[in-house]
Amino acid sequence: MSQVKPHTLSGFMELLPEEQNMMERLLDTLRRSYALYGFTPLDTPVIESADVLLAKGGGETEKQIYRFRKGDSDLALRFDLTVPLAKYVALHANELTFPFRRYQIGKVYRGERAQRGRFREFYQADIDVIGDGKLDIMNEAEIPAVIYRTFHALGLEKFRIRVNNRKVLNGFFAILGLTEQAGDVMRTVDKLEKIGPDKVRAILTEDFAVPAAAADELLSFISCPGSSADKLSFLETYRGRNDIFDAGLTELATVVNYVSAFGVPEANFEVDLTIARGLDYYTGTVYETILTDHPEIGSICSGGRYDNLAEYYTDRTLPGVGISIGVTRLFYVLQEQKMLSEEILTAPADAVVIPMGADCTAFAVETATVLRAAGVRTQVYFEERKFKQKIGFADRSGIPFALIIGSDEAAEGVAGVKDMATGEQRKLAPADAAAYILSALEARKNCRVITD
Amino acid sequence: MSQVKPHTLSGFMELLPEEQNMMERLLDTLRRSYALYGFTPLDTPVIESADVLLAKGGGETEKQIYRFRKGDSDLALRFDLTVPLAKYVALHANELTFPFRRYQIGKVYRGERAQRGRFREFYQADIDVIGDGKLDIMNEAEIPAVIYRTFHALGLEKFRIRVNNRKVLNGFFAILGLTEQAGDVMRTVDKLEKIGPDKVRAILTEDFAVPAAAADELLSFISCPGSSADKLSFLETYRGRNDIFDAGLTELATVVNYVSAFGVPEANFEVDLTIARGLDYYTGTVYETILTDHPEIGSICSGGRYDNLAEYYTDRTLPGVGISIGVTRLFYVLQEQKMLSEEILTAPADAVVIPMGADCTAFAVETATVLRAAGVRTQVYFEERKFKQKIGFADRSGIPFALIIGSDEAAEGVAGVKDMATGEQRKLAPADAAAYILSALEARKNCRVITD
Repeated sequence: MSQVKPHTLSGFMELLPEEQNMMERLLDTLRRSYALYGFTPLDTPVIESADVLLAKGGGETEKQIYRFRKGDSDLALRFDLTVPLAKYVALHANELTFPFRRYQIGKVYRGERAQRGRFREFYQADIDVIGDGKLDIMNEAEIPAVIYRTFHALGLEKFRIRVNNRKVLNGFFAILGLTEQAGDVMRTVDKLEKIGPDKVRAILTEDFAVPAAAADELLSFISCPGSSADKLSFLETYRGRNDIFDAGLTELATVVNYVSAFGVPEANFEVDLTIARGLDYYTGTVYETILTDHPEIGSICSGGRYDNLAEYYTDRTLPGVGISIGVTRLFYVLQEQKMLSEEILTAPADAVVIPMGADCTAFAVETATVLRAAGVRTQVYFEERKFKQKIGFADRSGIPFALIIGSDEAAEGVAGVKDMATGEQRKLAPADAAAYILSALEARKNCRVITD
Repeated sequence: MSQVKPHTLSGFMELLPEEQNMMERLLDTLRRSYALYGFTPLDTPVIESADVLLAKGGGETEKQIYRFRKGDSDLALRFDLTVPLAKYVALHANELTFPFRRYQIGKVYRGERAQRGRFREFYQADIDVIGDGKLDIMNEAEIPAVIYRTFHALGLEKFRIRVNNRKVLNGFFAILGLTEQAGDVMRTVDKLEKIGPDKVRAILTEDFAVPAAAADELLSFISCPGSSADKLSFLETYRGRNDIFDAGLTELATVVNYVSAFGVPEANFEVDLTIARGLDYYTGTVYETILTDHPEIGSICSGGRYDNLAEYYTDRTLPGVGISIGVTRLFYVLQEQKMLSEEILTAPADAVVIPMGADCTAFAVETATVLRAAGVRTQVYFEERKFKQKIGFADRSGIPFALIIGSDEAAEGVAGVKDMATGEQRKLAPADAAAYILSALEARKNCRVITD
């Protein structure tokens, strides 16, 4: 028979079972955390009509998109979860209740140049709150709580949610007389962390004709030191000079004001005036989240407020606020940084029942049935092998408990329950074995995915 | 701005929030049930190299597959989860522990002619046990238990798992002297339920030159009445005439013998000699599962034993046994038959906190934070609307509890907790409200997805 060499495409993550179990725990934690905040799960097709996905069009998207024909149809794979959400909300607006809060965790596709740590197929985990016509600022104030609880539930402690407000920046640019260059200025400011203040200053003055004094004031403005409260006080000194600025400052103050009522510790939150998040989409609060010990990784959860989700599909004004976690990249980074818990249970089962001979099979099956009914994830090792190989199976698969059943045990109605980590063994009836295993594993099952 | 009409491609399921919540419960039940049997979750790319996916090639697959180029690459979307599994196991064989038990729930793609109830993108939920070189018959005996527990956990009672053994059929065809026509005979027998015995007899004798006496014996054989035990006794009368038949009969007897030890009630299981399951893939036990009140729907969970999973990728012999549930179609059918539970909680949240004025917002946020910490899925309704519209929100979104917070309540540190179904209202402190809501919803949260 002619054979094909099995391979997985470059840029496509495919995990081994232990890793996949860890990923499942991560995804499950995201689902639970998002659901706790009243976001409803959504699922949309991976394939959409190309005209729908490319309604906005332009730029990197068109280059990277997977687009193809099938019969008469011009199709494409979704490259994010925001465009499908816009389509969904525009299409089903009359059947939804607003504000509409949804989460979606799904694969998206971008034909990027392959490079280490970059994926062409990757999971995004998004939440958005969509209003009908308008949306209260308090929805923006709630987002840091969702981010905090989500990463806290994953096991992270050393992270910081940074917020800013686009109106504050745009208003300040107007105060400096830079409204015309606002886009260029915003893009340049976004590079501050990467290239440093000197280069930012040079680009502003040389490339975008920003007067030196304005560039200096801008740099000193965004680098304002101190706590979030200090920064708000500093911003108040500019109040009254521009309406957009004032509106943004009031919004930012509201977000800061409610952070602790929402349960976010001060250490995990800060106002950061350098955050701009791209150019034309966001219109209010913007968010980034960094690992404080690994700022070089960049933001692991970003988003912001936008004024009109679905303008390419409907005249209905649908403002919203949302954030996105690039899960596949996050998982990759956590693996690289050895930040995934080694305590967590990644075995395919909690227990393996091993009948030592054909006469023990029936009791082994009954034992497994009791364990499963009690909620113990159980395999039975049915293969005819030597004793050593049978026990070796539990070891190789990392299954924490082996229940060895020989003729004597079967006759007695017990199993030799072996703790594979300690080697300790005790004879227990099936129901007792189930209780013993569940109790022994309780701590490991509640273990969080990440250690930092 | 030029707009695109938002639409979802025909043949692609896109659910409204309540339906999606139901689907999530269904998928979650499958994951838990599969995991309980020691299957490890797996995830493989949706896109694979076309040469990998089409290694076997031929027939309907090539016609239906979504295949396209990106740069220099010839790519395709997976059309099932078995071929990606074969690739995965061949590629990672040295890193896996055998028998390798995996489950995978994921979307697959087939460009079928669009018609009602047929989907081009649909979820499959598969389990497989893969042996290295050989695999004990007990693995085949365990599969009905997984099927039973899975559908039982979903809430189904009126279903029956039908099993047969391909060796029994092939051996019997040999006894009748029909080895040469075995494939044609198998395909014809497969149509028995659809076209009836007379037409089967006519096709066998007229199209495939089966002697009339052989056709009669074949029809009487496969229509053998009685219990599974009766059928085994009947089959025993043929023992000793063909080795393949004898081996198949021993396997079938083993499967039947262990069914009750695995916890499968007799009413949910039967030997059915008419089941053939296609032609060339399966080599031992085969499975189908029907809804006893809706046999017209056909099998909702099928599979069987195969001798060589990955022969197109590796010389290593990898026998296995697996089953697959077509989840999207199952969900569609359950909706059609109105078999989805109306008791189940499909709201985006368990509770919505409604501050009646700006001075109540802080306490509303604190209340929501307490509820969430206790595990109550909670929204806060922040929009400035009239009282009636605020309460109307809880109603429209189907959220079972509204916590109304006016100035008096905020001052007292309580909320007016309204049971939206009964209209009953009580004043409770946040922690008491959490306990009350969790206890009131316990029954609905444990509710099963399907009612039959």
